[in-house]
Amino acid sequence: MREAFDAELARFRDQLAALAKGTKDAMTRATTALLDNSLAEAAGVVGDDDELVGLHHRIDQQALVLLARQQPVAGDLRTIMAGLRMSADLKRMATLARHIAELVTRRHPRPVVPSEVRQSVVAMGAVAVRLAGAAQDAVTTENVDAATALERADDVMDDLLTSLYRTLVVDHRWDAETAIDLTLLGRYYERFADHAVSVAKRVAFAAGTRRPEAAPSS
Amino acid sequence: MREAFDAELARFRDQLAALAKGTKDAMTRATTALLDNSLAEAAGVVGDDDELVGLHHRIDQQALVLLARQQPVAGDLRTIMAGLRMSADLKRMATLARHIAELVTRRHPRPVVPSEVRQSVVAMGAVAVRLAGAAQDAVTTENVDAATALERADDVMDDLLTSLYRTLVVDHRWDAETAIDLTLLGRYYERFADHAVSVAKRVAFAAGTRRPEAAPSS
Repeated sequence: MREAFDAELARFRDQLAALAKGTKDAMTRATTALLDNSLAEAAGVVGDDDELVGLHHRIDQQALVLLARQQPVAGDLRTIMAGLRMSADLKRMATLARHIAELVTRRHPRPVVPSEVRQSVVAMGAVAVRLAGAAQDAVTTENVDAATALERADDVMDDLLTSLYRTLVVDHRWDAETAIDLTLLGRYYERFADHAVSVAKRVAFAAGTRRPEAAPSS
Repeated sequence: MREAFDAELARFRDQLAALAKGTKDAMTRATTALLDNSLAEAAGVVGDDDELVGLHHRIDQQALVLLARQQPVAGDLRTIMAGLRMSADLKRMATLARHIAELVTRRHPRPVVPSEVRQSVVAMGAVAVRLAGAAQDAVTTENVDAATALERADDVMDDLLTSLYRTLVVDHRWDAETAIDLTLLGRYYERFADHAVSVAKRVAFAAGTRRPEAAPSS
């Protein structure tokens, strides 16, 4: 019985790791779609997102099965609960990547990112992909130390966002549509980073070193 | 044993209902702070949010205790899982109300909402409070029908947001700071509405009439 449970728990973890990988790939492609103004890449992100949502649903189902089948001991219970929340975070991250891709599609052929703020957006994309990779590592290796490193990278993202908004305010050449797009774009990247940090914190919770709740609050 | 479990489950539900009420009150006050440009109301929202976050943590803990103490039967398991997710939604809604309040504080004494778009924002605030009230009803009464009504109100919110953004784009008088503020403001209201709908869907899931996952996807 315990052996079957362990096998199912291992499968649960594998699915989470696959979702984390898919989420990182989605952000990588979405940022490429944005910077290359590529409809094909954008469409790829949207298509992949449907699969990630499906995977997220299967993880949720698996968690319910695990909880229902056998009284999980304390450590297993934490793993399952943390996994459920990570699954929600990762799905949300995939949705945010999809929002970036959809912005590209909506404005095409006009690029979303004017050349004047391209470097800010390149930096935000790089931090987002790095954070997604760190979240994936945390999920895969169950490495607790990742949380601290991720929080630092999240601060970098906040600074980049502040700088992007300041550029918009100081430099008066922008029309409202560009300002709206860049505000939303910045917000998508910022939220993505928050959720990545949250994933790492939940790994720490599962290991017993954090409070249960670590949902992004900003 | 079952009796003690039922008493704890009832307490879990009461805490959820209290969180739902607190969230609705937060949005009511945040909208008042916004429309009256009131620092005092804004500070009230921020102060209350700390309490709501504490309540959310206690709900999470309670869920873990319920899951750990006794093998919950299928219906109880659904109730606890749905409750956990509702708690996360409601906490996020409270955070979004707080973001609105913080926007008021940040821009004061300049009002966030220019008179030209005041009516749009009044309407968004009214829909948000109505949705929060419906979510509260759904949690309190466990009424499954609420979900459908909420989805309609959520469509109204989406239309209001589109209209707000269109006003910003068509009317060229806005500076970038106003455009950024109103874009974020609109997004906070929209996300708040999405989470309210999600709460109602989770009530339906707990009752066995919905898929497990109903997290807002937009």
